[in-house]
Amino acid sequence: MGKRIHNFNAGPAALPVPVLEEIQSELLDYRGSGMSILEVSHRSTWFDDVINEAVARIKRLLGLGDDFEVLFIQGGASLQFCMIPMNLSVPGKTVEYINTGTWSTKAIKEAEIQGKDVTVTASSEDRNFSYIPREFTVSPDAAYLHITSNNTIKGTQWQTFPDAGQVPLICDMSSDIMSRPFDPSPFGLIYAGAQKNIGPSGTALVIIRKDMLERVPEGIPTMLKYSTFSGKNSMFNTPACFVIYTINLVMKWLEETIGGLEKMEAINREKGSLLYEYIDASDFYRGTADADSRSLMNVTFRLPTEEQEKAFVSRALEAGLGGLKGHRSVGGCRASIYNATGIDAVSALVDFMKDFERQNG
Amino acid sequence: MGKRIHNFNAGPAALPVPVLEEIQSELLDYRGSGMSILEVSHRSTWFDDVINEAVARIKRLLGLGDDFEVLFIQGGASLQFCMIPMNLSVPGKTVEYINTGTWSTKAIKEAEIQGKDVTVTASSEDRNFSYIPREFTVSPDAAYLHITSNNTIKGTQWQTFPDAGQVPLICDMSSDIMSRPFDPSPFGLIYAGAQKNIGPSGTALVIIRKDMLERVPEGIPTMLKYSTFSGKNSMFNTPACFVIYTINLVMKWLEETIGGLEKMEAINREKGSLLYEYIDASDFYRGTADADSRSLMNVTFRLPTEEQEKAFVSRALEAGLGGLKGHRSVGGCRASIYNATGIDAVSALVDFMKDFERQNG
Repeated sequence: MGKRIHNFNAGPAALPVPVLEEIQSELLDYRGSGMSILEVSHRSTWFDDVINEAVARIKRLLGLGDDFEVLFIQGGASLQFCMIPMNLSVPGKTVEYINTGTWSTKAIKEAEIQGKDVTVTASSEDRNFSYIPREFTVSPDAAYLHITSNNTIKGTQWQTFPDAGQVPLICDMSSDIMSRPFDPSPFGLIYAGAQKNIGPSGTALVIIRKDMLERVPEGIPTMLKYSTFSGKNSMFNTPACFVIYTINLVMKWLEETIGGLEKMEAINREKGSLLYEYIDASDFYRGTADADSRSLMNVTFRLPTEEQEKAFVSRALEAGLGGLKGHRSVGGCRASIYNATGIDAVSALVDFMKDFERQNG
Repeated sequence: MGKRIHNFNAGPAALPVPVLEEIQSELLDYRGSGMSILEVSHRSTWFDDVINEAVARIKRLLGLGDDFEVLFIQGGASLQFCMIPMNLSVPGKTVEYINTGTWSTKAIKEAEIQGKDVTVTASSEDRNFSYIPREFTVSPDAAYLHITSNNTIKGTQWQTFPDAGQVPLICDMSSDIMSRPFDPSPFGLIYAGAQKNIGPSGTALVIIRKDMLERVPEGIPTMLKYSTFSGKNSMFNTPACFVIYTINLVMKWLEETIGGLEKMEAINREKGSLLYEYIDASDFYRGTADADSRSLMNVTFRLPTEEQEKAFVSRALEAGLGGLKGHRSVGGCRASIYNATGIDAVSALVDFMKDFERQNG
């Protein structure tokens, strides 16, 4: 193979090299089946083992009890924006959302399209979504409170999750699931597009507390009901088999190579500190998120001029550091340092940033 | 690699070996990018080239003009069962369906769930879906006529498509798309889950005639509108990148190795003849579909007893012939012989069937 780069893509993003190597090695013959995993029936024991193992690993890693079900639903987080109000709103109750940026805004829009009674409980739009709101009150009668745990575009992240009392939390964890342990008990539903921290694009991971399934109304389309997926181990129809297979390998890597989410969090904190401490000490680079709200997954920063940012991104790529351009809606630079992006990559980035500052500062 | 079997799975199903080898060879470094195709951003020129090439190849292979758009939508054919009536019904008009088995029945159910005015124009349920209806009348005022071109479970296939006059045809071609050329002009929408003839599971291919987009109503969820996908080259959100990449390689194989759909059809006819002629001549095996309706993709047959069928399936697997069990809802045996299952595989199957008949007949 050719030389691999350090991959700072926001998603689809870096995957652990041992996972890629395992996929490659068995691509023409999956474990003596005489078929590729791409050719194996989803109704076979081979694939049953894959999906059951993936579910079991996810439950172990997150410490989920039997009150939770783990589902795989195609369509990404964007389809979940629609399925959540469709399935989990309650007649006569408001649905509450905290708006921390682009993805929250889209989630709110889909609830409004369906005519739900939406309350935006708090928002950080006043300062361009550069922080996580702290002061707000959740109505005890709300059907749910929706938050986005990590904001890829603005580089912010909830450091601790809000207390909503008895109101179930619903959380889009697309860009930081499996990056740290947390208490799952306040969550009615957690969802995550796979393509950042857990696998390639093509499925959402959906974790639903079983009592929430009682809310699913009759009369909505079959493929949009959570109960359709929970009743059939995510196989009412053919799921995204290869994506689930890869997720299982990434979960195995998390359990067996990394050693679980406490260890993963320690590594992620080390990576974040390396980058943020250098940015904080520099007069050349400037972080865009408030220090108490900033993300350990997506480090957003600016250089003195847009011209310098452009030069930075292209010279970094020449030096083997890819994906550092900020989201097209905000500009600037962004280093996405998900689980599979190692300390070596972050060290190489900091070294490059120092060189670039010396030459251009 | 280990020994590969002849794969007669109904889906996910066999893929061309050169496609699997190409995926394997570039899995850790996609064309000098230093990343796996699994790690490349969907907003990169690498992936833009992949999706644009896939669309261009599909248009060339099917002879689609500029009046058609080619889309990739997650959720399989099952989500299309719901999106079609949601997007393409017309207030005051009926939607018409021809019921040729399990998949048509599911498509009809999803239109009914949404309260659409459904007319079942014809059905072959009276004889257990063993044939394709021939005599029926389509109302000239129908919003569309929906058919299922090939029925994987019952082993039937439309030999020629019905004439619905000015009423747009909507067709589920999940299990025979790209197996033969056809005139696309009467079709308002064609859809196909990828995992039979064109790739791995995880996306539906949706081909929509542009005038149909004018029917898409306001006020439905963003991810359920065809216009969302057509306006963004299927990338409103992150698509199933790896599946689309593999579809592109399968389309390349169809164009460059097979030589197009006329050639593919000739091969498929040869494969079908080999099997059906032997079954027709045998007193031991018995085809389940009417001769004038039978499928060139899924050959369904019975043996004298269920015990013999069980022995047939397991001894075939020992002989390197996999996936011959009939669908769990109907029993019996089924050989799915999609594009990627070669004449060599069908010859090996016929040889095995002859041996088995000699020993058990």
